[in-house]
Amino acid sequence: MKKIIIASTSTLYNGAYLDYLLPELRIHFKEVKELIFIPFARPGGISYDEYTAKVSSFFANLNIQVKGIHEFENPKQAIANAQALFTGGGNTFVLVDMLYKYDLFESIAESVSKGVPYLGTSAGSNICGLTMGTTNDMPIVCPPSFKTLGLVSFNINPHYLDPVEGSTHMGETRETRINEFHCYNPQAVLGLREGSWLEVIGDTITLKGNLTARLFQQGKEPIELESGTDLSNLK
Amino acid sequence: MKKIIIASTSTLYNGAYLDYLLPELRIHFKEVKELIFIPFARPGGISYDEYTAKVSSFFANLNIQVKGIHEFENPKQAIANAQALFTGGGNTFVLVDMLYKYDLFESIAESVSKGVPYLGTSAGSNICGLTMGTTNDMPIVCPPSFKTLGLVSFNINPHYLDPVEGSTHMGETRETRINEFHCYNPQAVLGLREGSWLEVIGDTITLKGNLTARLFQQGKEPIELESGTDLSNLK
Repeated sequence: MKKIIIASTSTLYNGAYLDYLLPELRIHFKEVKELIFIPFARPGGISYDEYTAKVSSFFANLNIQVKGIHEFENPKQAIANAQALFTGGGNTFVLVDMLYKYDLFESIAESVSKGVPYLGTSAGSNICGLTMGTTNDMPIVCPPSFKTLGLVSFNINPHYLDPVEGSTHMGETRETRINEFHCYNPQAVLGLREGSWLEVIGDTITLKGNLTARLFQQGKEPIELESGTDLSNLK
Repeated sequence: MKKIIIASTSTLYNGAYLDYLLPELRIHFKEVKELIFIPFARPGGISYDEYTAKVSSFFANLNIQVKGIHEFENPKQAIANAQALFTGGGNTFVLVDMLYKYDLFESIAESVSKGVPYLGTSAGSNICGLTMGTTNDMPIVCPPSFKTLGLVSFNINPHYLDPVEGSTHMGETRETRINEFHCYNPQAVLGLREGSWLEVIGDTITLKGNLTARLFQQGKEPIELESGTDLSNLK
């Protein structure tokens, strides 16, 4: 049975790393002794070792040992044997490029479909959608494709941001960008605000956290979804 | 002799389309009777015809007739014969994808190097750099490459935005994103604020407008450049 957490962000304003998700993660990773971390997104360009150490220090709270995927000679095998998986945030283009380089998309999707619990935050959540086409990141490297894991049948926009009232900036708002996405792509886009996450248990997808999320569908006005909404049939 | 204007934005807050550039454009397009407009970036998904009509209505002020590149059976030939070129803003991924589809990068660069005056705004400015790797746009389509015109030997970040003071948003600031770009790419990045533009006359590149621009170089602290700064040797 699939067990996935797709979080908008790893960290809340004034919060510590993953802290707001701690109660959920205790349940999500209950039986887990060892977790494989995918540090490829490298936020701020930090090294895989540094990033893995940060994650390791958090998971010590749950008595879970963390190994970075870069520490394995055969990453595909490591994914296949994993007890649990976590893909951290950073730059989605860099993350997707590396996952293609190591040819890991299929391996991850397969493990997750077999019930290996998965956690994604930010870029690691973006790749749970059909494509990375609704990332907010800068295209600092060019991956061979924007196709991603498709663990859910729609796209994720993490760190969803409402238009800033009274802004004099002429660049596009997030909503404008997602509407432009729908000129070229049919799938729904879920704007997840910082503090929201999706919980996937088997075939059931539920919006969690204290906030509403903004749903964009091609040819329709966007709507706000209450926490607790069942998104299992969203496409 | 090259004659290029690379503008951060087409429109200032509370301003009309291209209005703030009018005096410059009178000089830039002095001898021009007909201009070819490249509407591929389609801001907000508007049609090529609608976008071209908007541009046409502005250039009527300068007694310049506008034709959209989509109106020509042979776009390459049209670029080669053009008296002047203007690439408008919108989505840079869409623009670059279409320019690759019609194989127009080389044709544009060649015409510009022969002295055909070029104007770019926003996405149309982004493609004047070495790559589109410092666009702010959402990757709503996947172009075959991020390589662009290279009319200047560095990258452009249009609509450059300073960090919002007191923001509680945990997504990356523009500066953080550009610093991440430099983990993977060596070229300088010029953050052009709305109201700034570059003027290229022959081999001389000058920062214009009333604002400073922010220059990012790999391994260095970013610096502010005064209007009037000569950027001819920037790489």
